[in-house]
Amino acid sequence: MTIRIGILGYGNLGRGVECAIKHNPDMELAAVFTRRDPGSVNVLTAGVKVYSADEAPLKKDEIDVMILCGGSATDLPVQTPEMAKYFNVVDSFDTHAKIPQHFDAVDKTAKESGHVGIISVGWDPGMFSLNRLYGNGILPGSADYTFWGKGVSQGHSDAIRRIDGVKDARQYTIPVESALESVRSGSNPNLTTRQKHTRECFVVAEEGADLRKIEDTIINMPNYFADYDTTVHFISQEELQQNHSGIPHGGFVIHSGKTGWEDENNHVIEYHLKLDSNPEFTSSVLTAYARAAYRLNQEGQRGCKSVFDVAPAYLSSLDGAELRRRLL
Amino acid sequence: MTIRIGILGYGNLGRGVECAIKHNPDMELAAVFTRRDPGSVNVLTAGVKVYSADEAPLKKDEIDVMILCGGSATDLPVQTPEMAKYFNVVDSFDTHAKIPQHFDAVDKTAKESGHVGIISVGWDPGMFSLNRLYGNGILPGSADYTFWGKGVSQGHSDAIRRIDGVKDARQYTIPVESALESVRSGSNPNLTTRQKHTRECFVVAEEGADLRKIEDTIINMPNYFADYDTTVHFISQEELQQNHSGIPHGGFVIHSGKTGWEDENNHVIEYHLKLDSNPEFTSSVLTAYARAAYRLNQEGQRGCKSVFDVAPAYLSSLDGAELRRRLL
Repeated sequence: MTIRIGILGYGNLGRGVECAIKHNPDMELAAVFTRRDPGSVNVLTAGVKVYSADEAPLKKDEIDVMILCGGSATDLPVQTPEMAKYFNVVDSFDTHAKIPQHFDAVDKTAKESGHVGIISVGWDPGMFSLNRLYGNGILPGSADYTFWGKGVSQGHSDAIRRIDGVKDARQYTIPVESALESVRSGSNPNLTTRQKHTRECFVVAEEGADLRKIEDTIINMPNYFADYDTTVHFISQEELQQNHSGIPHGGFVIHSGKTGWEDENNHVIEYHLKLDSNPEFTSSVLTAYARAAYRLNQEGQRGCKSVFDVAPAYLSSLDGAELRRRLL
Repeated sequence: MTIRIGILGYGNLGRGVECAIKHNPDMELAAVFTRRDPGSVNVLTAGVKVYSADEAPLKKDEIDVMILCGGSATDLPVQTPEMAKYFNVVDSFDTHAKIPQHFDAVDKTAKESGHVGIISVGWDPGMFSLNRLYGNGILPGSADYTFWGKGVSQGHSDAIRRIDGVKDARQYTIPVESALESVRSGSNPNLTTRQKHTRECFVVAEEGADLRKIEDTIINMPNYFADYDTTVHFISQEELQQNHSGIPHGGFVIHSGKTGWEDENNHVIEYHLKLDSNPEFTSSVLTAYARAAYRLNQEGQRGCKSVFDVAPAYLSSLDGAELRRRLL
């Protein structure tokens, strides 16, 4: 018996989930749901049907876990609690300040309907959160540092694209190597925003645009760039297409702490992700947690969980004895 | 109410647990048990009593979790199932081939007595195992690689010390940088034992010993050194004392895998530990899992578990809402 997965939202993340299911023989893609015209959406998997998002509840007996692939700003706050009425659900909700209320909303409908919902799954929040938690659990009272990149920030790229005279843009967030080194040394440095990351922008300007003005606007943009050392490169649309069309990302969680009666020994725990495709990796994490949601629900659990609440064994299709034999 | 911890076995690991408890305000050291003469053992924590190991069962109402700090060869196979009759237990059992039978033995007595036992806790097995499991769960069907070092191998150091003419010795296991790089590149290389690690030995010879013969014996020692590129340095006892008295260790778990419809994107997950003190870090992991054992048992669970079976939230003294707010 395979776990039947539904995808709601067929953008980069939805397609990533579809690809991840190929790597998980214990799962099958049951259906894709979209808010676009279903006839306009072509999925990769032969024989899989596309339905309107409104029809999802009708498929509640044909899908074990619905993976929500919408955005955190407006889609997930509505969709995840709603879908938890009919399905076990997994999402990648990443608006940090709103996690408590999202958790409560999903918990309520999931408990009422007897489903499991796992929210904020991906790499940050997600795998990075896990590493912050394990680090703090093992070496409590110590400092942890999260660095992002080198990778494309969609939000910052969008912010540049909204500037007058900009045709297209791509922004990379880059951790500062000397900051990484100082954290790795165990010195527990206090690092400002500027000391941790730099921002590099590749911009395609419209013909005749005032490049100097665009650059100034970027560099001084509050919240997005003003607190960082930012570099701006003007390039052609062709060059952008050729060298900057991927969506790589990644980063580091570094936790350092002391042990010993007089805190005489230092320890550094470093977790590093280097991802060719940010959405596809996030999708792979979502898919693994879909297995967990299904199995937890089979065991009688219900309500909302985060990655913190899921024992690692639930992510694997192997049973306990096999896991201990192969991976412990 | 604090969690009352007992320590059985007061060597490096036991002392490490004692130090770790200092960093965990929700725990207290209740008692230390030893197979030596209790009068000969001086602990660091004021007011804590040392008892004979035989007396442990008498303290069953005064201790919430017993952390077993003996060796895997002969101590733990007997002690952990025995102590699970009276306490929740945590151990660092690391004889890989015997984990299934150890698991079953602990499971049996822990279930009968209504306790939780968590075995094979530390960094390998332990944190490294978790990273192998998370990697395999997220990117199934991909390769993972474990490298150890740079660090002191106690077993290899002991093997050298047993050679005729050797007074003292310290052996470092060192991962080969080019092997690390080839794994990080995502090329999924097939690496031989020799390609993954080198071994570096610092040896204090007895006066008049045949150095050439000692070196040959080390380099050609089956299982321990014959399959590795090994370097031998003869040094004085003073130099050994001054430069090689620590017990650092660490290593890498690197998991790389592909995503995308045609496996076109590569991802590298790297976990790296750099530890000044191997036993103290292991002790810190044991202590965090002692909290988990206690809390799981409070929730009514019983029987044997590994790190795979414990949801990460149980390692922290913070509650779910606080964890989501601070670390998710």
